[in-house]
Amino acid sequence: MERITPSLIRALHARKRPGDIDLGLGEPVLRPDMGLFEAALERVRLHGAPYSPNGGFTELRDAIALHHGFPGRTAAANVCTTVGSEEALFLAIKTTLDPARDEVLIVEPCYLAYPKLCILEGIRHRTAALSPDDGFAPRAAPVLEALGPGTRMVILNSPCNPTARVWPEAELRALAAGLTARPGPPVYVLIDEVYRELYYGPEPPASMAMLYPHTLTVGSLSKSNALTGMRSGWLIADAPVIANAIKVHGLVNTASSTFSQWVAMEAFARPGSLAAHRPLYAERRRALLALAERHGIRLVPPEGAFYAFIRLPPHLAADSMAAAERLLDEHRVVAVPGTAFGPSAEGWLRISWVPEEATLAEGMARMAAFFASA
Amino acid sequence: MERITPSLIRALHARKRPGDIDLGLGEPVLRPDMGLFEAALERVRLHGAPYSPNGGFTELRDAIALHHGFPGRTAAANVCTTVGSEEALFLAIKTTLDPARDEVLIVEPCYLAYPKLCILEGIRHRTAALSPDDGFAPRAAPVLEALGPGTRMVILNSPCNPTARVWPEAELRALAAGLTARPGPPVYVLIDEVYRELYYGPEPPASMAMLYPHTLTVGSLSKSNALTGMRSGWLIADAPVIANAIKVHGLVNTASSTFSQWVAMEAFARPGSLAAHRPLYAERRRALLALAERHGIRLVPPEGAFYAFIRLPPHLAADSMAAAERLLDEHRVVAVPGTAFGPSAEGWLRISWVPEEATLAEGMARMAAFFASA
Repeated sequence: MERITPSLIRALHARKRPGDIDLGLGEPVLRPDMGLFEAALERVRLHGAPYSPNGGFTELRDAIALHHGFPGRTAAANVCTTVGSEEALFLAIKTTLDPARDEVLIVEPCYLAYPKLCILEGIRHRTAALSPDDGFAPRAAPVLEALGPGTRMVILNSPCNPTARVWPEAELRALAAGLTARPGPPVYVLIDEVYRELYYGPEPPASMAMLYPHTLTVGSLSKSNALTGMRSGWLIADAPVIANAIKVHGLVNTASSTFSQWVAMEAFARPGSLAAHRPLYAERRRALLALAERHGIRLVPPEGAFYAFIRLPPHLAADSMAAAERLLDEHRVVAVPGTAFGPSAEGWLRISWVPEEATLAEGMARMAAFFASA
Repeated sequence: MERITPSLIRALHARKRPGDIDLGLGEPVLRPDMGLFEAALERVRLHGAPYSPNGGFTELRDAIALHHGFPGRTAAANVCTTVGSEEALFLAIKTTLDPARDEVLIVEPCYLAYPKLCILEGIRHRTAALSPDDGFAPRAAPVLEALGPGTRMVILNSPCNPTARVWPEAELRALAAGLTARPGPPVYVLIDEVYRELYYGPEPPASMAMLYPHTLTVGSLSKSNALTGMRSGWLIADAPVIANAIKVHGLVNTASSTFSQWVAMEAFARPGSLAAHRPLYAERRRALLALAERHGIRLVPPEGAFYAFIRLPPHLAADSMAAAERLLDEHRVVAVPGTAFGPSAEGWLRISWVPEEATLAEGMARMAAFFASA
């Protein structure tokens, strides 16, 4: 318990004062589609609020499998509905690995729950860092080089929180080829696709599950549909992995909320529901890029999600936590220090560009003023 | 994973045919109060569906603490909201015990998740069996006698699934006194009060948390308010235990559903909401006792919950699983074999008396016919 340290993000938020500009958010500010809730309420009127089966309603599990269309993952037996993508990560790590033998390799910078879940389950982990020199572009080579004899799982995130980079298909293919060529038991790839629907290139992000059979895919409606509080997540994998995940899921919380599952079933039943917010994010992203250009702020152009990873100017780059603290205390803007996502991200800040454009503009202006100050 | 065996209850349900009488249910058939849902929906209209804090909304945590009124457990810091009472059990076991050293003592017959959660977390457990000779009346003596040098937690359930017995205050006091007198580190009592609001004596069940400081109390709105599918549970304990529970809860699923918490907040805000279904259960219980008397079926009169534990006649008592299978296959009534709840309950069947009275009457008549057959 003691090795699981409190979140730096939470520590910063505790210092936030009323009126501060919050670019530290990890959830949409858009509103969800009320029609989903009204339809779910109608089901409560008809059926009450009974338990679902442990793994979730078959209709929802089928819809999730169909939406993704992964080869060999087309049935309800390939899906466990979970309490958010967070529980899907937990189940994947807890049920597929042996703490006595297996090691996890985490691609960094990363969402900090990945190493913490390994610590919670007593599973060794190491990291493979992407390079700040090309804006943390996802690459297979450093991951393959970092594999150890005990590595049994690689954890990726695409689109990535915090870097907003997307793994290109060619790099996923190279990773799949490298892992397949490796002797010994197969290495799972646990890919967190919670930002899957929020992409800004011409094509949707490639999915590792299309390319590599030992893939476990995590997703949710939290970000695409502004439903973070509904905890509507899922794990997609081969049927034996899912059977074990459901066993543990049943023991740790019985099942996901029936109401949340009904909301999710409505979302999957409405064509375009999961993509409905993307144009709004794309518009906000254009504003962000224009603001960064205007203020001379160096950032990695977001390929997905709703974050931007910003390079601190040289005089601030040695301590991103100190920079974030000064930005908050002196300029009243919340941003998250890169070190919250691993040591490779020292010298960077993560901002969310989900707030209203006027708020974002004011926050960027203040950040530019801070960067220009001594 | 392999040591966690599939549920006997589920295996029986898989054999159920359409039209069979199901007395195996573990959830209410009453409908929840739609007003709770409509009020929660109004909050979604106003606020969307954002994350709650990891431990739950402070207003709800305060309301849960106030409702229970346990000494020294009066603040939000004493409560973690959980994904049903199941997650509260999981968090209590996972966060307070050391698998290398600690042992759990489970009072049997018991809800089968208790031993399974110990197996899942690699924590040794033993059982202390109550006696069938007095209908599994809860008693401190056999529990105190079964304590071992490594025992660090005792798990009780009051009102009890499957026996429908309630721990009398005098026995809880004797247990508290015995545990307090024991040398060495304190022994936690984890008491599952998920059926707390469903009691049929003149007084509410006594709570161990009123009598013993090292108590962790688990509860939920699932049974009292017919909200099983909402997964609205909680853990109540001292603040350091809750702080650790929230840390793990945050990692395994971030937080409980915001919508479910809003439904729960409405329930706690409406006087009498948690007790509203009790008179309906009390009426059904009277019908059950009359039916048992009419048919000469021997059962333990339920003191709480919505189960009845039925003694099999001598010619069937050697194998409750075989009896349950015959009852289902030959008489088309689902009941749960006692052995599903531990070896001490061999020779017994658990029925739920939540179905409509006519259904219950037909089920009891068929059971009597089965018991009378060779």
